[in-house]
Amino acid sequence: MHVDADRLREDIEANARFGAVDADNGVGRTALTGSEADRQVRERFVERLTAAGLSVRVDPVGNIVGRWTPAGCDPEAAPVAVGSHLDSVPRGGIFDGPLGVYAALESVRAMQSAEVTPGRPVEVVSFTEEEGGRFGVGTLGSSVAAGQRTASEALSLTDDDGTSLEAALRRIGFDGDDTVEAGRWDSWVELHVEQGTTLTDAGAGVGIVDSITGITNCEVRITGEADHAGSTPMDERTDALAAASEFILDLERVGWECAKTSDAAVATAGEGAIAPNARNIVPERVELDLDIRDIDHDTMTRMVDRCRDSLARLERTRGVDTSIERYRDSEPTPCSDRFRTAAEAAAATAGVTSVGLPSGAMHDTANVAAVTDAGLLFAPSEGGYSHSPREWTDWSDCAAATAVLAETVRSLAST
Amino acid sequence: MHVDADRLREDIEANARFGAVDADNGVGRTALTGSEADRQVRERFVERLTAAGLSVRVDPVGNIVGRWTPAGCDPEAAPVAVGSHLDSVPRGGIFDGPLGVYAALESVRAMQSAEVTPGRPVEVVSFTEEEGGRFGVGTLGSSVAAGQRTASEALSLTDDDGTSLEAALRRIGFDGDDTVEAGRWDSWVELHVEQGTTLTDAGAGVGIVDSITGITNCEVRITGEADHAGSTPMDERTDALAAASEFILDLERVGWECAKTSDAAVATAGEGAIAPNARNIVPERVELDLDIRDIDHDTMTRMVDRCRDSLARLERTRGVDTSIERYRDSEPTPCSDRFRTAAEAAAATAGVTSVGLPSGAMHDTANVAAVTDAGLLFAPSEGGYSHSPREWTDWSDCAAATAVLAETVRSLAST
Repeated sequence: MHVDADRLREDIEANARFGAVDADNGVGRTALTGSEADRQVRERFVERLTAAGLSVRVDPVGNIVGRWTPAGCDPEAAPVAVGSHLDSVPRGGIFDGPLGVYAALESVRAMQSAEVTPGRPVEVVSFTEEEGGRFGVGTLGSSVAAGQRTASEALSLTDDDGTSLEAALRRIGFDGDDTVEAGRWDSWVELHVEQGTTLTDAGAGVGIVDSITGITNCEVRITGEADHAGSTPMDERTDALAAASEFILDLERVGWECAKTSDAAVATAGEGAIAPNARNIVPERVELDLDIRDIDHDTMTRMVDRCRDSLARLERTRGVDTSIERYRDSEPTPCSDRFRTAAEAAAATAGVTSVGLPSGAMHDTANVAAVTDAGLLFAPSEGGYSHSPREWTDWSDCAAATAVLAETVRSLAST
Repeated sequence: MHVDADRLREDIEANARFGAVDADNGVGRTALTGSEADRQVRERFVERLTAAGLSVRVDPVGNIVGRWTPAGCDPEAAPVAVGSHLDSVPRGGIFDGPLGVYAALESVRAMQSAEVTPGRPVEVVSFTEEEGGRFGVGTLGSSVAAGQRTASEALSLTDDDGTSLEAALRRIGFDGDDTVEAGRWDSWVELHVEQGTTLTDAGAGVGIVDSITGITNCEVRITGEADHAGSTPMDERTDALAAASEFILDLERVGWECAKTSDAAVATAGEGAIAPNARNIVPERVELDLDIRDIDHDTMTRMVDRCRDSLARLERTRGVDTSIERYRDSEPTPCSDRFRTAAEAAAATAGVTSVGLPSGAMHDTANVAAVTDAGLLFAPSEGGYSHSPREWTDWSDCAAATAVLAETVRSLAST
């Protein structure tokens, strides 16, 4: 089979022109769900599906599927689905999502050119609102397709201006009434950029993901006493920011310790707020939002327990009040063995060096994996930059990873 | 001499009704410079000055002075000035400022009742915009009176809506054309609430301030790298927030160490911002605004040097970039020996227990001290609460501290 690198590049570049942004460094785009850019992105995708002879359907939350049922395949067989997403974060990169969608279409076109006749239909998929960039919930379209959320729940979500997803999709004409049910798929494969440097460090052309990490989010609140920064001696303070600083360093230490036994273990305090946040007032309260991930759920829980220990110690040593709420806990998702076996063979066939690795980022694949055999491939990310115009994957790397995707799909669709 | 506690209380309570705010806990007010509440506050003050037989003048920045020149005193002698401010922070307390202004007036009335004839005129003063609550610059009126800033510089300051101090004062009719020059005063005394708990801890009725601390402010910037919180392993991060946490704990340690040799030494990180401040992104940048005070300027500089050492270490150990800018540095202000001697004797005469202490908070007195003998007295603050409706000083404590103020003024005006 031959993947047409130029055709793939043209598709991704044409897609990137919708919502293109100015950037000093790199190439970026903003394609938020239901925006004018999103309408253009979707309409072009439908055109390209149709041009390749695929029949298009759109479900109520705007998930788009192009179905290829070549002569000779069993149209009643459960299809192999392959795809990703076309939305972006504000000022995101041009590969995050679109590579996987257009590589899926290119895989079908490669099979068509090679006159491969798979035993199963192949469906090329673009999920709605993977980034959560407008309606605040990531991997939204796939969560509906996988039955974790009803379409009406998703459609009632609103953006910052109060516009519902339903209204936004209706405005761009992508409020369909077809059905997209991931549970009816024989299997699913997604190709995505790595958003890290494991592949480039290893000199590998494709990553075969063994597991997508789970994510725990915790809200931590540390309360001391607001006092005058001039007239309150050091020994009469209950400084919430100083206490929070000890906590942040404890969290970092916990992440390092757990990373000794699991490469995927990470612990991050990325978001925080100080109150009253005035130069001349000793901080009364600090709120932190934590992100804790690993491929082992027990390790995630151990990290949260260690956070609780740290807070309990700060209550004793610094007299602060503390609370921690584990408000989100999604379990790690292993990719299916059937996918990994097929992908390893596909990489060998395509002559592309592969490495196995975990995915620290969340992907639509995690939702689909709950209802069918699912797998995730990574293409190299130069420098690991992500959610930024600096994101980049060389066109030759796009093509190599797509060749592995095409072989994997061919293999899955023949069984 | 007899201070009339009820008359003083009536003045402060009547003043507090202008701009009164609802509060679950305590009694509060909002009297921003040039507001309707400020107009009412000022008009009542002028009435009360006039009722006591004082002649009123108002300068271009709205500083108000009531002058008492009793029969028998030398009208050409340099006056003793006494007062504070009538503006408040948003939702401030009712004593911070008004106690000092109405205690000054009560001191004159007590001398009048006791038929004391001082050798010098006495001027009762209310300075404009001490809090910087509307025009952003604290101790503004006294800085003009002390010649540190021209009236036109002050008048051109604007609030958040673009209204100038000049326009705001004209609107309420307090854009005067009289002269208020602190450099022409024989001496100055201010009574203020402590905003700390040294007096209540010591069971003292009045504080005689020996020095007002200097203030150094520094802007610290720590820059790491923004990375995906899921796909960036712990050992590939340059986390600006973790680095900032080490810095904040170093700053706290420096404050504690310097406080061993100087009670007034304090170091605070009260204000900070994280960028991009997103739960799933390793922090790229943290900015902190520091407040460093002491009564010894060398110690203040030593604290800043120690901050530089900490940042240099973080550059080496964590690979972050850092900067620190000492953008404000006001020197400590000792109160005059003449004031302290007079105040100590006054406390003894009034039968009020006194303690000597530094002032960690900034006051108009610091400006006036640059041009004449100046002193600052403190009344006890229950619990040390300040800039809040929880601020409280018992009426009996107000009266006791005012008795010391009146004796001090009598003493200074007789020499």
